[in-house]
Amino acid sequence: MSSKYDKVIDFAIRKGILWQSFEIYGGQAGFYDLGPLGVLLKNNIVELWRNYFVKQHQDFVVEIETPIITPSIVLKASGHEENFTDYAVECLQCHRIYRADHLVEERLGISAEGLSAEELDKLIKENNIRCPICGGVLGNVHKFLLLFQTYIGPYSVSNLAYLRPEAAQGMFINFKRVYELMRRRLPIGIAQIGKVARNEISPRQGPIRLREFTIMEIEFFYDDTNPQCEVLYERCSDERINVLTAELRSRGENRPISVNVVEAFNEKIVLSPWLAYWMCISKKFVNALGVPDEKMYFEEKLPSERAHYSKQTFDQIVIVEKLGKLEVSGHAYRHTYDLERHIAFSKADLYAVKQLKSPKMLKKKIVKYDKNAIINMFGSKAPLIFKALSTMSSEDLAKLVEESKEDFVNVGGVEIPKNILRIETVEENIWIEKFIPHVAEPSFGAERLLYVVLEYAYSEDGNRIVFRVPKQLAPIKVGIATLVDREPLERIAQEIFNTLKKFYYVQYLEGSSIGKKYAQADEIGIPYVITVDYDSISNRSVTIRDRDSRKQIRVPIEDIVKVIDLGLKGENIFALGYPIIEPQTESKEL
Amino acid sequence: MSSKYDKVIDFAIRKGILWQSFEIYGGQAGFYDLGPLGVLLKNNIVELWRNYFVKQHQDFVVEIETPIITPSIVLKASGHEENFTDYAVECLQCHRIYRADHLVEERLGISAEGLSAEELDKLIKENNIRCPICGGVLGNVHKFLLLFQTYIGPYSVSNLAYLRPEAAQGMFINFKRVYELMRRRLPIGIAQIGKVARNEISPRQGPIRLREFTIMEIEFFYDDTNPQCEVLYERCSDERINVLTAELRSRGENRPISVNVVEAFNEKIVLSPWLAYWMCISKKFVNALGVPDEKMYFEEKLPSERAHYSKQTFDQIVIVEKLGKLEVSGHAYRHTYDLERHIAFSKADLYAVKQLKSPKMLKKKIVKYDKNAIINMFGSKAPLIFKALSTMSSEDLAKLVEESKEDFVNVGGVEIPKNILRIETVEENIWIEKFIPHVAEPSFGAERLLYVVLEYAYSEDGNRIVFRVPKQLAPIKVGIATLVDREPLERIAQEIFNTLKKFYYVQYLEGSSIGKKYAQADEIGIPYVITVDYDSISNRSVTIRDRDSRKQIRVPIEDIVKVIDLGLKGENIFALGYPIIEPQTESKEL
Repeated sequence: MSSKYDKVIDFAIRKGILWQSFEIYGGQAGFYDLGPLGVLLKNNIVELWRNYFVKQHQDFVVEIETPIITPSIVLKASGHEENFTDYAVECLQCHRIYRADHLVEERLGISAEGLSAEELDKLIKENNIRCPICGGVLGNVHKFLLLFQTYIGPYSVSNLAYLRPEAAQGMFINFKRVYELMRRRLPIGIAQIGKVARNEISPRQGPIRLREFTIMEIEFFYDDTNPQCEVLYERCSDERINVLTAELRSRGENRPISVNVVEAFNEKIVLSPWLAYWMCISKKFVNALGVPDEKMYFEEKLPSERAHYSKQTFDQIVIVEKLGKLEVSGHAYRHTYDLERHIAFSKADLYAVKQLKSPKMLKKKIVKYDKNAIINMFGSKAPLIFKALSTMSSEDLAKLVEESKEDFVNVGGVEIPKNILRIETVEENIWIEKFIPHVAEPSFGAERLLYVVLEYAYSEDGNRIVFRVPKQLAPIKVGIATLVDREPLERIAQEIFNTLKKFYYVQYLEGSSIGKKYAQADEIGIPYVITVDYDSISNRSVTIRDRDSRKQIRVPIEDIVKVIDLGLKGENIFALGYPIIEPQTESKEL
Repeated sequence: MSSKYDKVIDFAIRKGILWQSFEIYGGQAGFYDLGPLGVLLKNNIVELWRNYFVKQHQDFVVEIETPIITPSIVLKASGHEENFTDYAVECLQCHRIYRADHLVEERLGISAEGLSAEELDKLIKENNIRCPICGGVLGNVHKFLLLFQTYIGPYSVSNLAYLRPEAAQGMFINFKRVYELMRRRLPIGIAQIGKVARNEISPRQGPIRLREFTIMEIEFFYDDTNPQCEVLYERCSDERINVLTAELRSRGENRPISVNVVEAFNEKIVLSPWLAYWMCISKKFVNALGVPDEKMYFEEKLPSERAHYSKQTFDQIVIVEKLGKLEVSGHAYRHTYDLERHIAFSKADLYAVKQLKSPKMLKKKIVKYDKNAIINMFGSKAPLIFKALSTMSSEDLAKLVEESKEDFVNVGGVEIPKNILRIETVEENIWIEKFIPHVAEPSFGAERLLYVVLEYAYSEDGNRIVFRVPKQLAPIKVGIATLVDREPLERIAQEIFNTLKKFYYVQYLEGSSIGKKYAQADEIGIPYVITVDYDSISNRSVTIRDRDSRKQIRVPIEDIVKVIDLGLKGENIFALGYPIIEPQTESKEL
């Protein structure tokens, strides 16, 4: 018996949802194409994400788009050039290269996440782990940079660039611009949906571990001393999430606990209120993909497992068959790390500002001088001195005077005797403070969600496959069938097709019987099938069949769009007052 | 006076529509970010394209998604590795690198498209063209590959890859899979929307010439002997396009002629009926972006200007200020080039098949043999002979026998005497024919369209900017304002905001007067502004103001969504029977 994973992948390939890329050239691991149904399904998942994370939060979350190709300085500043690595090990005989931690995990059945090169090397040698293909001896474990590398333009040395491994840096380096556009208000979420690339060493999990995939990410910026996270209390106070904390894990526990979202923050299980809020939204979003609460939890990473930029990280895990658990999103408390690094590397001002409730007293040194004394001393050269002095701020000048070891200071080429400059200390009330916002990040991979939707919607009903995908995600919304393939039924069906295709993706169903047409529609998850029968000729009505209940209603042709619209919005089409036809038995349908 | 281009770019940057990427690190030529309004605008353009090109043609056009990272073999087969180049020339003094044809065009005011390296070199030397920055002498013109290069995985030698310069190859290498999914019917269009990258030598036209951009492309496959292009006659027989043919251009003409689309094909101005059809749809699509017919034409490329894969190419040109003309799409008759090349390089069967109306007679040689004779001759070894013979087709065996110079043939290690094998010639009726479909390709760049929309929608009304973007493209659909910023008006406005944000992108307008709020809405092209005033308290009604006419209607709060929906679909909201309020004068509004 093949596993559900294998059945689902087989189904997905057969129906043109996805397949391995470049297959006429032998295929390339880590790359998958989306076929016609796959694109529709993925776009619906992306649109649902956009709705949950951006549109419903549009008062403080905006979406931007930044390039995939990224100059190396950006990923040097972000720490990726140094830290975004995996450990590789090469077979000295056949020269195949493996990911060292995965090899150790597979062979020894232990978790090797976060182990150092030395620790991995020791485990490989002590346990005599060899090449899984040829049995050859393995070399030493070494770091491998997971960034795809390229060069921008014809100057190969100075223009080293990488394909971005996350969208996040596009949001960090643009924080100030968006902050100004939003009139310097916090909190702000900057979202992005787009392709990223990670040069995995030897990806082997089909469409699960891809070298190129679509990320959906928010960098959420807030003032840590005043997070303004009212929505956490307004919208999540009745919500619970399953959490497997690092503390539980370090005690060897592997069963998540259920906690109220607000309590999770109050009890410091989740360190940032906004991280907790987005985890709550993420739970609801994954529910909408068809995954119930009991099949999902948030696993806190151990310090050794966390990315370099994170103070706390949770992976959102969905239970799947075969693989057991699948990370569908990451929730990182990136704190001030990224903005701090970009400030240091770019010298740009990426601070937020806030009005203080009471002023802060600031002492500073300034320079004063007697204009008349200068005129007396320098005569016609005095204007030159004044001009030179006007080019510097009084504070900078004071610093210059204090640092100078000569009797004079040189200001723009003009030497000014120190004894005519008098340093004074003054006090100033400061009402505005610069600070670096804290950042909470929810980050999703669209293709993994697509796999989750496939596995959770795939079902078998006897010999038939029914793809019970949530209606709003269904690639094709309406099927159109004739009871028999004959005129004028086919003409009427074609007219309906031509009308509906303006609104939805529609499929004209073909097959030797109406039952086969229904089966064909169920297999690709079409929520509603319209059937044109003999009554359609006499009274311009059709039946609309519901995928999940197989019940039908009889509606006038002119009501079709209205009924389908309501149904796709989640309303019960059987409560609209149209005559209901109970489903025929399976055998009769086929 | 600054040009409209400069005004539009300034406007776009100020409003957060777009800006140069990586600006905190000094910026990177050829890369632009889209800000919050830019993403919404671009997504609306993409969705409109999808509607015109895919959704409305969903009976025969499907969308797929393939990777950006592409193994080198694919782009070797496609001819890009050899031909996707520009001529570069380096300053021997400051070592800046320029695109040779652009330099010649700028300095000599002639068209240098399609000139060879030798011709460019000659022009540079004869005219003493020097480095425009430092005045240094230029070196020799050389080819520069415009593909971004990278490596997949840890094996650096064998896994050379490029970032795709077009989406097209993803469709070609998947043609057979999609063809099978579509039940082997032609014509089929395979569409794709996604990022591509071209390593331009020295891009200098702001957001117009990008190194990374979004392509929207269809590869349209059809049987050249039976194109089934009825839609050309059904939908385009009354449509005219402006065309500047290669023939006109070669005679020095630069004024396009207006031709009926069907005639353009019939008179062989456009060589493929499907190319003509998609040019017609492209014209209508660009109309919908706000560009009238008289500002647009199709320019046929000269043979020397065409890409290596094309039998005929038209650029769709939109007239813009400053640059004069801007190519927004390319229409290439790619013929059988790409599929032929991939068949040759991959050995995969990328043919379409067709049923013939009358059979073709085919003569072929087959092998016959007498079973009993073999049993008599070989005894217990006979089954071995039969088994060996069964491993080859009769035709292949006949070829083997004819080619063998020995008395026997070797079939899978078994030597079989030729004299027991008898070659016969038989005739067969063939009802099915393999063929390579022809391909017509419309290809758009989304960011250039975005610029066109910006320029065509940007208008000034006195000191105010009004962004007259077509309603369906408007980034923000509804603005919400209070007549005065006071309770309970603000509470009512907030309630309306919270309801509408479920359906649209909405903006809560802030400003010191209602006129300033309207001006702010007009500037970013918001089609409708809802105003909450004192009457809203007593009778739960608001006004809805139309951006372009500045007229308002008074509607009950519960009707807002219905009215806005109708308005965005293009209906006249002033014909719905609500009380109409004529616009106040400009000065009163402000």
